[in-house]
Amino acid sequence: MAGGDELRLLGFWGSPFVLRARLALSFKGLSYEYVEEDLTNKSELLLRSNPVHNKVPVLIHNGKPICETQIIVQYLDEVYGASNGPSLLPVDPYDRAMARFWAAYIDDKLLSSLMMMSRGKTEEEKAEGRKQSSASMETLERAVKECSKGKPFFGGDGVGYVDVVLGGFIPWVNLIDRLTGSRQFFDAGKTPLLAAWLERFGSLHAAKVVMPDMERLVELSEMSS
Amino acid sequence: MAGGDELRLLGFWGSPFVLRARLALSFKGLSYEYVEEDLTNKSELLLRSNPVHNKVPVLIHNGKPICETQIIVQYLDEVYGASNGPSLLPVDPYDRAMARFWAAYIDDKLLSSLMMMSRGKTEEEKAEGRKQSSASMETLERAVKECSKGKPFFGGDGVGYVDVVLGGFIPWVNLIDRLTGSRQFFDAGKTPLLAAWLERFGSLHAAKVVMPDMERLVELSEMSS
Repeated sequence: MAGGDELRLLGFWGSPFVLRARLALSFKGLSYEYVEEDLTNKSELLLRSNPVHNKVPVLIHNGKPICETQIIVQYLDEVYGASNGPSLLPVDPYDRAMARFWAAYIDDKLLSSLMMMSRGKTEEEKAEGRKQSSASMETLERAVKECSKGKPFFGGDGVGYVDVVLGGFIPWVNLIDRLTGSRQFFDAGKTPLLAAWLERFGSLHAAKVVMPDMERLVELSEMSS
Repeated sequence: MAGGDELRLLGFWGSPFVLRARLALSFKGLSYEYVEEDLTNKSELLLRSNPVHNKVPVLIHNGKPICETQIIVQYLDEVYGASNGPSLLPVDPYDRAMARFWAAYIDDKLLSSLMMMSRGKTEEEKAEGRKQSSASMETLERAVKECSKGKPFFGGDGVGYVDVVLGGFIPWVNLIDRLTGSRQFFDAGKTPLLAAWLERFGSLHAAKVVMPDMERLVELSEMSS
């Protein structure tokens, strides 16, 4: 990290979007001050730093705020390049486009199906969410092949942009599996490449140190349901 | 453009997302083959090139497909850099993050309010769409200031990423204004900077040559309503 650099992250421990930013910081080996926000009483700093959405995560780099999780990850990658940790986005423009495509897919299709599953108002809606989640995971199984080209991660030999974007959801899909008492995601029978990816990603030290505690997540989900 | 390069764009004339890709190609001065798709009978090439979403636009560069409008624009900018036309994304990583932030805002908040206005099922929903559109335009008025820093475009002296992303919606907001007989967008009284931007952007030759015909758009909207 360049001398005199100051990085602060405004976050909430129970947010998958904040987790992504933390995963990116962790994989890039960057030191930063983590500031936990009380979302029921947001700080002046958060409201001033993200006046448009008033949401976490916000990265503050030498006093300048950067908002939105995927934008933060790309910003960190562009500012710190390969000087800190691995480059998350591929060098080749076509591979970058593919990484952006799958990251957008995860935030669009996978996220909306997860929301439908966990917050659906009727049983029909929840069942539709399960169906769509399952279809999204099957599509992502193809993405592993396309992006990794036979290597261990979406990013190839090391973790990349798509790994970080998908990695942010791991605790929440594990939570859904635990609450429903089934294995709906990363099922080795249905999506073997994704299941193997989960094993590898989850065992990385840089990932483990920022993952939220599952018991706390269970409590959080009970409070908000 | 590098020798031997082949660019094809699969599109539909009445799509704002296709228009963006065409604006980017036009501002960068790139030659390409435009292939009009019949959306009621999509070509094998489209289905094969975008198997995940089956949607236009798809850019095919030397046989390799790139999908999703914002990803196509960034790809063109990365591949052709400043060698063809202006760089659309700023060089400075912070300015790039800001450009990505406002582009995401346009696709999230402005687009969803436009959809609510034009496709709302009840009068209440349409009214809510109008309210949200108006709020989005006021927020974007602030974005002009932040991004342009007193210069003519979001991109500064020349058009940039946000100009192209917002520019793609011009014909459709003009259409809504025409159909409702009012001036709801780019109103000089409410958002003077955006109104001045619209004048400047709309008068550029590279924009004019790819804008769809308003009478045809009116017909299209009558057919689909």
